[in-house]
Amino acid sequence: MIGLVTKKHAMAKSRYEYVRNFECEDRLLPSTWLVVRLDGQGFTRFTEQHHFTKPNDIRALHLMNRAAKVVMESMVEIVLAYGQSDEYSFVFLKTARAYDRRASKLATLLVSKFTAAYVFYWSEFFPDTPLKRLPSFDARVVVYPSDRIMRDYLCWRQADCHINNMYNTCFWTLVNTGGLTPKDAEKRLNGTLSKDKHELLFGEFGVNYNSEQEIFKKGSVVVREKAPIDVIDKGGHSSTRFKSIVQICHCDIIGDAFWRERPEILGQSEH
Amino acid sequence: MIGLVTKKHAMAKSRYEYVRNFECEDRLLPSTWLVVRLDGQGFTRFTEQHHFTKPNDIRALHLMNRAAKVVMESMVEIVLAYGQSDEYSFVFLKTARAYDRRASKLATLLVSKFTAAYVFYWSEFFPDTPLKRLPSFDARVVVYPSDRIMRDYLCWRQADCHINNMYNTCFWTLVNTGGLTPKDAEKRLNGTLSKDKHELLFGEFGVNYNSEQEIFKKGSVVVREKAPIDVIDKGGHSSTRFKSIVQICHCDIIGDAFWRERPEILGQSEH
Amino acid sequence: MIGLVTKKHAMAKSRYEYVRNFECEDRLLPSTWLVVRLDGQGFTRFTEQHHFTKPNDIRALHLMNRAAKVVMESMVEIVLAYGQSDEYSFVFLKTARAYDRRASKLATLLVSKFTAAYVFYWSEFFPDTPLKRLPSFDARVVVYPSDRIMRDYLCWRQADCHINNMYNTCFWTLVNTGGLTPKDAEKRLNGTLSKDKHELLFGEFGVNYNSEQEIFKKGSVVVREKAPIDVIDKGGHSSTRFKSIVQICHCDIIGDAFWRERPEILGQSEH
Amino acid sequence: MIGLVTKKHAMAKSRYEYVRNFECEDRLLPSTWLVVRLDGQGFTRFTEQHHFTKPNDIRALHLMNRAAKVVMESMVEIVLAYGQSDEYSFVFLKTARAYDRRASKLATLLVSKFTAAYVFYWSEFFPDTPLKRLPSFDARVVVYPSDRIMRDYLCWRQADCHINNMYNTCFWTLVNTGGLTPKDAEKRLNGTLSKDKHELLFGEFGVNYNSEQEIFKKGSVVVREKAPIDVIDKGGHSSTRFKSIVQICHCDIIGDAFWRERPEILGQSEH
Repeated sequence: MIGLVTKKHAMAKSRYEYVRNFECEDRLLPSTWLVVRLDGQGFTRFTEQHHFTKPNDIRALHLMNRAAKVVMESMVEIVLAYGQSDEYSFVFLKTARAYDRRASKLATLLVSKFTAAYVFYWSEFFPDTPLKRLPSFDARVVVYPSDRIMRDYLCWRQADCHINNMYNTCFWTLVNTGGLTPKDAEKRLNGTLSKDKHELLFGEFGVNYNSEQEIFKKGSVVVREKAPIDVIDKGGHSSTRFKSIVQICHCDIIGDAFWRERPEILGQSEH
Repeated sequence: MIGLVTKKHAMAKSRYEYVRNFECEDRLLPSTWLVVRLDGQGFTRFTEQHHFTKPNDIRALHLMNRAAKVVMESMVEIVLAYGQSDEYSFVFLKTARAYDRRASKLATLLVSKFTAAYVFYWSEFFPDTPLKRLPSFDARVVVYPSDRIMRDYLCWRQADCHINNMYNTCFWTLVNTGGLTPKDAEKRLNGTLSKDKHELLFGEFGVNYNSEQEIFKKGSVVVREKAPIDVIDKGGHSSTRFKSIVQICHCDIIGDAFWRERPEILGQSEH
Repeated sequence: MIGLVTKKHAMAKSRYEYVRNFECEDRLLPSTWLVVRLDGQGFTRFTEQHHFTKPNDIRALHLMNRAAKVVMESMVEIVLAYGQSDEYSFVFLKTARAYDRRASKLATLLVSKFTAAYVFYWSEFFPDTPLKRLPSFDARVVVYPSDRIMRDYLCWRQADCHINNMYNTCFWTLVNTGGLTPKDAEKRLNGTLSKDKHELLFGEFGVNYNSEQEIFKKGSVVVREKAPIDVIDKGGHSSTRFKSIVQICHCDIIGDAFWRERPEILGQSEH
Repeated sequence: MIGLVTKKHAMAKSRYEYVRNFECEDRLLPSTWLVVRLDGQGFTRFTEQHHFTKPNDIRALHLMNRAAKVVMESMVEIVLAYGQSDEYSFVFLKTARAYDRRASKLATLLVSKFTAAYVFYWSEFFPDTPLKRLPSFDARVVVYPSDRIMRDYLCWRQADCHINNMYNTCFWTLVNTGGLTPKDAEKRLNGTLSKDKHELLFGEFGVNYNSEQEIFKKGSVVVREKAPIDVIDKGGHSSTRFKSIVQICHCDIIGDAFWRERPEILGQSEH
């Protein structure tokens, strides 16, 4: 009797398996750059609840970078990542084969790993601020067919970082130092060019925008670098080997210099 | 001079914005059930590293349920969730409009919220086991066109739970109590029907499978229920109102009873 | 030497076959109604060049119907087709399996068959009008998850037929009989309700819109019907068998009567 | 009364328009080569019914080319087409914008135009063979991200042409001249390399494969060429202008020469 019950279930299971046919394939075009971009969801509210400093909270940026490092260390086909504010973009090699290039697998695993690290390392970067609300991120995969277009994508994000940071630096200087209301600060900045913003910061507040921290102005670039390590063999002879490690810098990725110095990033295409 | 630099960037940004055209729409078919299923990635290794009890670790199941509750509390169009082992399925209403039904938004936000909660609440369920490795989950969205097919999807998962649990219960009883090697236990179970498994458990080990915990045999079903709350108005008069709360049970969802008792789940279609 | 050349080609071929990986799957969701709608491309110009009568050219409508019959006779999973003006919609069974439900296969084959028939039978319907320009059609496949929504799709097309035909009947009566310029006719009709249009036709031109041909007002509905055929066996005994034949009518498909009389159309779902 | 009927329809129409939300976007990735490949459906049977000569029917190939010319003349963003047997591939510029790069629009219109031309021009190429059965073609769009991969696609098709033609030439020589049954011819060719096939043709039948017509060995390549035209202006002065015309050749497109001589084909990328 008991046996019949589960036998029924076993048969039932195979009877239900037709539902698998409703899943649909989402393999991304081969030989193209895959970029997964994560964005914080509801972070305006999140930053208020956790008293992030404005316009930039250095702890929060370092936490984002820490999470990005975790992701890059676990997904070896990511060659480059770029982060600013509450967003992070991960660039997979054109030749990437992970998870058969299935869009949903790549995006969901990546965002899951990033979120896990963000929550796990929170207390390391915000030791005095308990999490009052769980952070979450969305993610999308975009396919770029050529090196130039992939680079233009990164240019777009870094130019966005620059523009936002300059605006936010002015805005919060007007509010925090200048004593303006947010509304008045907004009105004051309306229609200004970047030249005007530089002058406003320097002329009225003695702030040289160019001296601001690079991480604020340029965002964070995560790359893999060969680091030399000294190895001593059994016979006591020492030699140097190279190990790939994940490094963070805050350099310009719009110009050619960055790419010229790292020919291995673009040099891996098959076709 | 300074101004020109950022003006260049501002123009650059708009010059790069063409890359947005490479993003592609992924709206899911309207008027269909959307199911997002999460699966633990590399959980075989994860459960070993954190010494999960076998065949089922009740702490781990309760942690999964805790994370599922967080998800359901933040996404109101989910009417039902079903979890077993290291997987969880979330069923959105046919009429769901969240994020314009974009597949990537739904799947990535959901998996991000789930992972955040899993890491955050870990220490509550595993107070003596620090996280040695970050957990991660993948997610996929599947579209089911009719009530019957959506129900068959859930039947498939619950039948899978039953079959796996019976097998695992036998396997670990043979190993832990019977002293067999994993290899011998596997051989012993090869080709057995569920009837044989019941007899093996009862005949050799005095274990009545039917007395095993429902959460192991049936998995976890998360639903919304109207709970009565007593309200006392300004005039001191008390009355009863109803509030929707998220509840977890371990009942059968293959038969009709579950659905008959909750007519609101299927009763919300537009067309 | 010669052999080496083609051997090189043979090897070359397999070297190039990686390009097949760039093809992507486009299977449509199972257990849903598939509707392929064809539309004439550039038909405003096409109808002028071939002197179609306005507002409706009965020869052109019969040619469209002839082509639709060819399509239905060659694709047995189409249960119903509906045509009006230069468009035709073909409804495949929910359970259709043709070409593994690949969207591009279904749409392209169907439009190819339709176009072939349109060109081939042209001279039968337009014996005195040689083709001056090749006709072409585009096609799209749309997936409808429920009977009600599929029916609403057809309602949408038939309501569209009715509205356009009433407008066009008024417009061309004003132009052809009333002697108005197209511009003045348009102005005259601007803002009129269907009630006003009926009155305009009857009051000014003695035309009773309700007496117009059904094919103009309702469009064309193509269905399969069981026709009795008399069979005489070897022993000289006669009996009646039924054969499925494709029939065209011009009836209402918005109301329930049509569907009630043909229960086999909706009655074929699996789940 | 009458008015109410159609007013109801007018309202009905807007009530039904929600069905448009079930249509889904299918824009192809920008800045990639789009290739639409047509294939004859059921052409084995079709060629028998119309007594095509074997292994190649020159009339049929010329008819295919005629239809391809019609397509290229009406879709200006096609830079190149390649045909062999009952298939034809059309290559759209990386920068093509026609129909907003919607896959279904491009594939269905193209196959419709091709089919219309094939039926229309049939009698010109087969004056003594009435169409006994309507031809039809399917079509698929494939996206190729780089020049090299697009060229490899064409190499794949031309290598396929070569291999098939060599096999078919041997097969039909064995059957038509050698008097073998099809079965025996197949057996005789089983396992032969191209070297063996050359020897078989030359040694047993005195046929030099290399002297076969280029259209059979290489297929047909359709390109646009600037043709000089003499123009005489109002003052009686003559000058030369250039007009783009569609040309067919049967040359090699695997090597570099073809591409070097037509730099305009690959030289049109934006990014």
